[in-house]
Amino acid sequence: MKHSKEYYMSIAIKEAKKALLIDEVPIGCVIVHNDKIIARGFNLKESKKLVINHAEIEAIKKASKKLDNWRLFDCDLYVTIEPCLMCMGAIYQSYIKNVYFGAKDPSGGAITSSINFNEIKNLNHYPHVEGGILEEECSSLIKDYFKNKRQNKKKLK
Amino acid sequence: MKHSKEYYMSIAIKEAKKALLIDEVPIGCVIVHNDKIIARGFNLKESKKLVINHAEIEAIKKASKKLDNWRLFDCDLYVTIEPCLMCMGAIYQSYIKNVYFGAKDPSGGAITSSINFNEIKNLNHYPHVEGGILEEECSSLIKDYFKNKRQNKKKLK
Repeated sequence: MKHSKEYYMSIAIKEAKKALLIDEVPIGCVIVHNDKIIARGFNLKESKKLVINHAEIEAIKKASKKLDNWRLFDCDLYVTIEPCLMCMGAIYQSYIKNVYFGAKDPSGGAITSSINFNEIKNLNHYPHVEGGILEEECSSLIKDYFKNKRQNKKKLK
Repeated sequence: MKHSKEYYMSIAIKEAKKALLIDEVPIGCVIVHNDKIIARGFNLKESKKLVINHAEIEAIKKASKKLDNWRLFDCDLYVTIEPCLMCMGAIYQSYIKNVYFGAKDPSGGAITSSINFNEIKNLNHYPHVEGGILEEECSSLIKDYFKNKRQNKKKLK
């Protein structure tokens, strides 16, 4: 059954909330193939003590395993926050077709914020990109997370 | 003991040759901390069927494990070929101090080829970058690999 972009993003938001439960920056991701979610991931950077464990990379690893291929042809990726350089690098090299994100990331977002992805030269694939899907909810999740962090720090002083 | 950049790159080349043995694109990497090699890696993309298994990512994973931290402060990374977007993303987010590479990659190199890394805005860290270390040897390894691939393909026709 074909679902809306908002539906898939709402599942990515559910993933982001799993990150929140373990005190990770709440970012979530799903990968869709033939209208089916084939992989989900959430940010695990601090838990795994590894810079690469972003939600997108977690999902890409799972999708590759599922399809038994590093080429993720005809797959769409939904992520709550604009992907960073590392994740966009993994996304275009996986041949992911469409990337949908929720809120922009002004410090590091590699679609339109820190860099305009389509202006990078000589790549072998440029996914279609689109932002602003359930933007407010995706953005609030992150903002509230950092607000709580700051408040807790103040309380400790 | 303090070694030269060429010494560390020669070890990265040894790693690249390990990739060659299993028919992977020959790219190798080492990470140095306090003048000691703390991690090595070579390209395993096809063997692991995962787009993220570049030499640099392999080495970053091992270095993070060794230092028990995703922050690789005061670490230098040596890689035979100019890192791609994904690897430069992982490198700057790990706070790696210096990046030394051998040969440029015109289709995807994210230091000066496909993009000028220092022109990306609002990142939290910009490593010092320097290319051309044992350039000819690093470049020949790759060129010979693809030349052999083409010749073998012709033979099969």
